[in-house]
Amino acid sequence: MTFDATDHPHRRRNLLTDEWVLVSPHRARRPWQGEEAPPAPPRGPSHDPSCYLCAGNVRMGGARNPDYAGTFVFANDFAAMLPDTPPPPSDPLFPAEGAWGEARVICFSPDHSRTLPELDDAARRAIVDTWAAQSAELGARWSHVQLFENKGAMMGCSSPHPHGQVWASDFVPQHVAREDECQRAWLAETGEVLLDAVAAREAGGVREVEANAHWLAIVPWWAAWPFETLIVARDPVVRMEELSDAARDALAQLLGRLMARYDNLFGVSFPYSFGWHGCPHGIADTKPWRLHAHVYPPLLRSATVRKFMVGFEMLGEPQRDLTPEQAAERLRAASPILETRA
Amino acid sequence: MTFDATDHPHRRRNLLTDEWVLVSPHRARRPWQGEEAPPAPPRGPSHDPSCYLCAGNVRMGGARNPDYAGTFVFANDFAAMLPDTPPPPSDPLFPAEGAWGEARVICFSPDHSRTLPELDDAARRAIVDTWAAQSAELGARWSHVQLFENKGAMMGCSSPHPHGQVWASDFVPQHVAREDECQRAWLAETGEVLLDAVAAREAGGVREVEANAHWLAIVPWWAAWPFETLIVARDPVVRMEELSDAARDALAQLLGRLMARYDNLFGVSFPYSFGWHGCPHGIADTKPWRLHAHVYPPLLRSATVRKFMVGFEMLGEPQRDLTPEQAAERLRAASPILETRA
Ligand SMILES: O=P(O)(O)O[C@H]1O[C@H](CO)[C@@H](O)[C@H](O)[C@H]1O
Ligand SMILES: O=P(O)(O)O[C@H]1O[C@H](CO)[C@@H](O)[C@H](O)[C@H]1O
Repeated sequence: MTFDATDHPHRRRNLLTDEWVLVSPHRARRPWQGEEAPPAPPRGPSHDPSCYLCAGNVRMGGARNPDYAGTFVFANDFAAMLPDTPPPPSDPLFPAEGAWGEARVICFSPDHSRTLPELDDAARRAIVDTWAAQSAELGARWSHVQLFENKGAMMGCSSPHPHGQVWASDFVPQHVAREDECQRAWLAETGEVLLDAVAAREAGGVREVEANAHWLAIVPWWAAWPFETLIVARDPVVRMEELSDAARDALAQLLGRLMARYDNLFGVSFPYSFGWHGCPHGIADTKPWRLHAHVYPPLLRSATVRKFMVGFEMLGEPQRDLTPEQAAERLRAASPILETRA
Repeated sequence: MTFDATDHPHRRRNLLTDEWVLVSPHRARRPWQGEEAPPAPPRGPSHDPSCYLCAGNVRMGGARNPDYAGTFVFANDFAAMLPDTPPPPSDPLFPAEGAWGEARVICFSPDHSRTLPELDDAARRAIVDTWAAQSAELGARWSHVQLFENKGAMMGCSSPHPHGQVWASDFVPQHVAREDECQRAWLAETGEVLLDAVAAREAGGVREVEANAHWLAIVPWWAAWPFETLIVARDPVVRMEELSDAARDALAQLLGRLMARYDNLFGVSFPYSFGWHGCPHGIADTKPWRLHAHVYPPLLRSATVRKFMVGFEMLGEPQRDLTPEQAAERLRAASPILETRA
């Protein structure tokens, strides 16, 4: 018997985290009798008078949003980190440390009903510029600036108005610290930047989904979520604010095409958590790093059947039910131009 | 200002994984406007003719269940690992390895409608004995035996008939390997078994939820899920099959009381993933280990509002919205005797 990745269980190692993922592609054949999520709500209006994020409306905290035209950034009324609280006591058995920071919300545009792939390239470019500006501004005083978007009720998003978040912290968060270690070790061992080596090998290959002169989007070899993608910068940049004008335009375009593929795959506004990893501003030696984004979407079989990361995944290790190559093939087969949705 | 854990953000380190958790207790005050899960379905009948797991019925794979009386174990028709598939090729940029194993399902009892806290101690004791027997039998030929239960549709459970799973593998899964490293390092540095030291310090303290002569159940210092608990063996055992007769009875009782507290907390059959971590059978030096179980329940605010581990949690680090001490207090305030449910 020769090995067939679409049929034979195996493990793959995530080079960014040094963790294993169990791949069990034959599991995709089992019938699903578990939970189905409620169908996505119909598209909302362009301006919703009861939305806390729409232009001109009053937020939960009491402040009134300006009559904004492009992106709109404000301090999160319920920030998980604050700039000036006392440090905790610590003990070998009960280890703790202080956590300081600030959190902001980025409204992507005044249009309540348009998600990333539904905006035009100019509006997406404005979002890229906002990410870059936030990274630069907050990075000047914090160790790490985490830019991310939770999209869809399934991903805990509490407002349908398209928006992202920024959490800046005085510490390098766990997963970013791990990626720093792994990229650093790779550079020390091979003399190469890990994600440059990955991008060089993946370009034009079976896991590629989108590419242009400045960016590559792949389903990584080690993807844990069914349709997870990794967006890697091809230019030698390590943080958002270093992106050239051309790379920003190219990103606006690539994001539009990639997210349209997701939406077209199951004919639904695709839920996900999506966010950027750049070299933390608190780390001076940026050489091992390459700027990249992770897209973690939960859907597995359809618009209403998700992958549950539970049980073995929580206690043993992440497990996936189709190969990354199969996922990439399906995303490539979906159109990069948004098809009309209800 | 003096530090107040219920008000001031901080990070706590998980000693079993060496990973940080961000604690932001003031976040519990924000109003929730996001997704609410559908209410739990009403209790089913004791025997459901359409259930694949009930006694005497035909399963999806075509086999007929015997007319079983206690627990009933069978090979999973859709196992994520198989005993004899070919190994994958591997490459420095695309690292892979073989994954062999077998998977089984454990029906807890013939009663379709009774979950762990609804069974009596004798029935729970039969489950403990089944876990021990599976661990011993499969551990004789595999490196690790992962025993777990996914409970509730919210946790991807696809059959309402109370059941657990066993996934045995030729490899030590990622999270177990990490716990092995951490417990090993602790023993080397301190001369103590990590979880013995934890149990000694936690007994009778603010994070204790249940205790008897053989077991301690706590919300661990580093809990990530809102009402996560850790059940630690107080006897010097490292695997399920080593449990004495008295420890098994005590476990049957403790599980009944702990799970009843969960159900009473929000008046709902509490969803969770729950499973055992013992020293992997493939690891000869068992000294650093102590047998323990993790209970990972998703609910945060009510029977229908869960914690979403998304966005910052997936890209940065786990974050929680109430302190472990607050969670333990609420679990202690809930009755250990199951209140009647619809
Ligand atoms: O095997 P089941 O119950 O059909 O499936 C469930 O448990 C598995 C093991 O935790 C998970 O991989 C699946 O995502 C989940 O839906
Ligand atoms: O800040 P939000 O959007 O209210 O909350 C959402 O995103 C946060 C950051 O990823 C998570 O901690 C919450 O669990 C989630 O519901």
